[in-house]
Amino acid sequence: MTDDSTPAFFSQSHAPEDRQRWAVKIEYDGTGLVGWQRQKTGLSVQQLLEEAASRMAGGRTVPSITAGRTDARVHATGQVAHLDFPISLPLNPRAVRDGLSYHLKPHPVVVLQAASVDPTWSARFSATRRRYRYRLLNRPSRPGIEAGRVWHVRHPLDVPAMHAAAQSLLGTHDFSTFRAVACQARSPVRTLDRLDVTRGGEMILFDVEARSFLHHQVRNLVGTLQLVGCGRWDAERLRTALEARDRCAGGPTAPSEGLYLVGVDYDPDPFG
Amino acid sequence: MTDDSTPAFFSQSHAPEDRQRWAVKIEYDGTGLVGWQRQKTGLSVQQLLEEAASRMAGGRTVPSITAGRTDARVHATGQVAHLDFPISLPLNPRAVRDGLSYHLKPHPVVVLQAASVDPTWSARFSATRRRYRYRLLNRPSRPGIEAGRVWHVRHPLDVPAMHAAAQSLLGTHDFSTFRAVACQARSPVRTLDRLDVTRGGEMILFDVEARSFLHHQVRNLVGTLQLVGCGRWDAERLRTALEARDRCAGGPTAPSEGLYLVGVDYDPDPFG
Repeated sequence: MTDDSTPAFFSQSHAPEDRQRWAVKIEYDGTGLVGWQRQKTGLSVQQLLEEAASRMAGGRTVPSITAGRTDARVHATGQVAHLDFPISLPLNPRAVRDGLSYHLKPHPVVVLQAASVDPTWSARFSATRRRYRYRLLNRPSRPGIEAGRVWHVRHPLDVPAMHAAAQSLLGTHDFSTFRAVACQARSPVRTLDRLDVTRGGEMILFDVEARSFLHHQVRNLVGTLQLVGCGRWDAERLRTALEARDRCAGGPTAPSEGLYLVGVDYDPDPFG
Repeated sequence: MTDDSTPAFFSQSHAPEDRQRWAVKIEYDGTGLVGWQRQKTGLSVQQLLEEAASRMAGGRTVPSITAGRTDARVHATGQVAHLDFPISLPLNPRAVRDGLSYHLKPHPVVVLQAASVDPTWSARFSATRRRYRYRLLNRPSRPGIEAGRVWHVRHPLDVPAMHAAAQSLLGTHDFSTFRAVACQARSPVRTLDRLDVTRGGEMILFDVEARSFLHHQVRNLVGTLQLVGCGRWDAERLRTALEARDRCAGGPTAPSEGLYLVGVDYDPDPFG
């Protein structure tokens, strides 16, 4: 019997002490997914995770909150969410991890770790840092093995130039230039803690860290830095674009398939 | 008009000087493929490559020979083959590379490099070394992003023990213990030049090199070393198994999806 009504979660049939909040660390291949958030257009990570949790809760609804609502085709190796079970699970963290992963089959979504957390702990609001990695395959030939997992750019990119220019974006700024028009954040001000650009063979990695990000911020930063890498922009132009506080002054949005949410930090770490 | 008869290649309609042999370096995701060799059961790399080449040769048959006939679901980042075009292609290496890759769409098979070679050069017989990498994901959770690209082993494996034991297999030996029953090689004697086992986080890599390998040799070596890694076998037992020269004395065959043909060496390098 499935109970889809959210109020049942607060009903008197379950005393508050029976409820349990679990934090989960998740990995997924976003290729065939519509992103984190439920959509009518296809399978979302949220739907798959909540349905897996529901099966462990005897069919009851288990709502979730995530640290980062990734877009369609974005991947994650360290996404974090919390699940509010309407019942107390008589299980240890390993059993919750394995149970959820079992019910997530055959989808490429897997729970890496699970931890029982205090009801005041939030995957979203307790996060102190989000870490993203963007992978760009820089070679003439299109990706074979990495199709759907990288942004493919044929022309050679100047990695030291991109890295050097990127450093001027660190710190606290109004990032309107790199913010999606649809972004719902109240403030366009964010503090960028890291934006490292490195090359390993044909792969260029962008490692980006901040307490929080604006919608499309990482992809817009990467898409704009790519203009520096191919020589169309210099570091001065990048700085001018930031100061314009206008999305029209920025470069294009890099494709979603190169983006990975690699980690979310908490203090203390619920999984530690 | 397609000419499927091999003799046409030698027909008098094309003088020998019109024929051209091209070496190609290829990358592929073997997940949906039946392996290198043509099969009636599904798509093979050979079929896809030869059909792409045929389109560049006006529909004429273009036979190929490979350095390594990889099994179903085995991947490659540096497979090498040669193609015998019945006509001289008025194209430079980049155009041949891009043309073949174009006609290989939408399959996850891509040509990385192409080089015109002497008709006496053979992708198979001129090879001086084959290099394979086997990837094993060693963690409790099944693979999400790497599904189909690794062997997943849940229990922790002792990498130093596997590496140490593996060193006793280096050199020239009768490798019958690690040879598939179906292997068609005349001799079971091979010279193993490298078998390094290393760990990078949750990923264990087996880097294996030899002039040539027996059928399933790398997968049988990895499957047997895994018994050392989980403590069921010690180094002495591995050595005894090798000396038994009997497939029944060896461990299981590791799954094909963890195997990558990463390179084939030639002297001189046609792509150099």
